[in-house]
Amino acid sequence: MKEFDFIRHYLQSRELTDANIILGIGDDAAILRPQSGFDWHISTDMMVSGRHFFPDVAPQDLAHKLLAVNLSDMAAMGATPKYALLSAALPDLNNDWLEAFCSAFFAMADNFGVSLIGGDTTQGAGVFNLTIMGQTPTGKGLKRNAAQMGDDIWVSGILGLAAAALASRLQGFRLPENCFAICEEKLLRPMPRVALGQDLLDLAHAAQDISDGLWQDLEHITTASGVGATIFADDLPMLDDLNRHPENLQWALTGGDDYELIFTASADKAKHIQNLSQKHHLPMTRIGKITQGQGVRVLNQHQQEIHFKQKGFNHFEKA
Amino acid sequence: MKEFDFIRHYLQSRELTDANIILGIGDDAAILRPQSGFDWHISTDMMVSGRHFFPDVAPQDLAHKLLAVNLSDMAAMGATPKYALLSAALPDLNNDWLEAFCSAFFAMADNFGVSLIGGDTTQGAGVFNLTIMGQTPTGKGLKRNAAQMGDDIWVSGILGLAAAALASRLQGFRLPENCFAICEEKLLRPMPRVALGQDLLDLAHAAQDISDGLWQDLEHITTASGVGATIFADDLPMLDDLNRHPENLQWALTGGDDYELIFTASADKAKHIQNLSQKHHLPMTRIGKITQGQGVRVLNQHQQEIHFKQKGFNHFEKA
Repeated sequence: MKEFDFIRHYLQSRELTDANIILGIGDDAAILRPQSGFDWHISTDMMVSGRHFFPDVAPQDLAHKLLAVNLSDMAAMGATPKYALLSAALPDLNNDWLEAFCSAFFAMADNFGVSLIGGDTTQGAGVFNLTIMGQTPTGKGLKRNAAQMGDDIWVSGILGLAAAALASRLQGFRLPENCFAICEEKLLRPMPRVALGQDLLDLAHAAQDISDGLWQDLEHITTASGVGATIFADDLPMLDDLNRHPENLQWALTGGDDYELIFTASADKAKHIQNLSQKHHLPMTRIGKITQGQGVRVLNQHQQEIHFKQKGFNHFEKA
Repeated sequence: MKEFDFIRHYLQSRELTDANIILGIGDDAAILRPQSGFDWHISTDMMVSGRHFFPDVAPQDLAHKLLAVNLSDMAAMGATPKYALLSAALPDLNNDWLEAFCSAFFAMADNFGVSLIGGDTTQGAGVFNLTIMGQTPTGKGLKRNAAQMGDDIWVSGILGLAAAALASRLQGFRLPENCFAICEEKLLRPMPRVALGQDLLDLAHAAQDISDGLWQDLEHITTASGVGATIFADDLPMLDDLNRHPENLQWALTGGDDYELIFTASADKAKHIQNLSQKHHLPMTRIGKITQGQGVRVLNQHQQEIHFKQKGFNHFEKA
C-alpha cells in the first residue's frame, strides 16, 4: 500500500463535523477558525518503540496510550480536547496492524471528541508523535505556577499501578492475582482524567498530570509557583494488595506513567473536591500541603523525611 | 545533562514576545489566545535519521531543514508562520551538538517570526517532529482544491537541484563544479517560500509546495480540484549546467525536496506573478495549463507524452 492510499483509506474517509475545522487532512495544512471566548491549549508527545512501549505491543494498546498521554496533558490544563495531528515512523505498512491501530485510535478519539486534522507517515523504527489541541474559556486554564501557600495537595486515582506492572514485566516477579489485571490495564490503557480536569477549572489553583512520577511532577508545581510542599506518605492512595511489596511506596512516589492529576486547592474547597469522587468514580485523596520554602518533602508516619535515589523518570539516564 | 535542565537551558530561557502566547514552554501545554479575523493553519512533519537526512548531518543543517520543510507547508497555504512545537528522540544529550542545533534552530525561527511554544525530548535513534502553526486573514488560505479550468500553472525557483545533489551523493558521480554548491545548499538548506506564499493570497487559486516531486505534488492539486493538467517539459526551470545530465528532467519532475511552490492562477494574473520574480529574487515560471479531464500529462518538445516509472517519492517503497 502506498503512503497516500494509506492516508486516504484510513484517515481522509472520516467526516469532520466540527464547525471550527475549515479544512482537515489532505492539504499542506489544516485550517481552523477560532471561536471567540476561548483559549487554545496545545501540547505534543513522542513515543519511541522500546522506550515508551514494548516493540511487540498490541496496536490497539499503542493507539490508546498515544492518545491517552496527550489527552492527559489537556486534562492537566482543564481543557476540552478538540484536535490532533499524528506522525508515525513505521517499519512497513502492514494492513492488519494499521487496521487495528486506526480502529482503536479513532474509537478513543471519538470517545473524547477529538478530530484528527493532520499528520505525517514515513518509514522508521516505530516512533509516534501526537500533537493535541484543546480549549478552555479565555483565561481559565490550570497552570503549574498558581499553587498558593496553605493549599491542600490532592491526587486522583490510585498511584504506582503502572510502575508495578512494569517492574513485574522487567524483573519477572508475580503480582498478586487480583492486582495483575488492574496494574496491566493502567500500564497499557491509562484513562486520562479529562472530565475531572474540566471540573477543576473553578476549584483548583495549580494542576498537572503525573507522567514521570508524583514527586518529580509535584516539584514542577512547587518550582513554578515558588513554594514548597509536604507530602504524607501514609496518605498516598495505593493498592492495599500491593502494600506487601517493599517497593510499593517508591512506585507510587516516583514510578510515573500514572496519568492521574495532582493539583492544589484552598482548604475550603475540600468538600467540593471530595464530591467529585462520586461523580467520576475515582478516589480523590488529599496527600499533603503547600508550604513555604522550596522543593517537595515526603514524611513517613513518624514525621521523618523519606529519601529515594531518584524522584522520577529521566529519559536520558540508564534505568 | 538531565532532560529538564536541557529544556530549561536551551528553550525556556528565551523570551516570548508574541501577545497571543499566554503561556509558552514549561507547563503541560502552551496556551494561545486567538485574534479575531484570522484562520489558523497547522501542519506537522517528521524527519527520520537515515531516511530524511544523513546520520552524520551537521546539526545546523538538520535544524534548518526541519524548520524549512514545515515553513514550506505554511508557505503553500499563504500563511504567516507563528508557532512551533518540537519533538526530538536523540541518542544522547551531547552539549556541543545541542548547542549547534539550537542556535541554528532559533536563528531560523527568529528569521521567520516563529516562537517555539512546546515540545518533547526523549531517547531514540534520531527522529524529529515539528508541528507548525500560522495565520491568514479569515477565509484566505490557499488550498489544493481551487484550481480552475484554463488556469496557468506556475512554479517558483529552479527544479531538481536537491535531487541532483542526492543522486550525486548516492551514486557518486561528479556534478559540474559550478553547480555543486548550489545543489548541495538546496538539499541541505532549502529556503521556504513564505513571503511569496503570502503574496499569492490574492493572485493564486490553488497552491502547494513541492516536497515529493512536482509531478506527484501537482497531481494532488488536480485530484483535489477535479481537473487535469498539462506540463511542457521544455518550460521547466532547470539549471542549464545540469542539462547535460540525462536524468535532469527526471530530477526536476519527480525528484522532490525542492520546497518550491507550485500554483495555479488565471491567465490575467500573469503580469502580476512575473513581477513577483523581481521582488523575491526568484524565477517565476509558467510551466503548463489546467485542463479538463484528470491527472497530469507531461509533453516534450514534440508534443509527445513523457512517462517515468515513478512520479515522486514514496516513503514506503524501496529506493
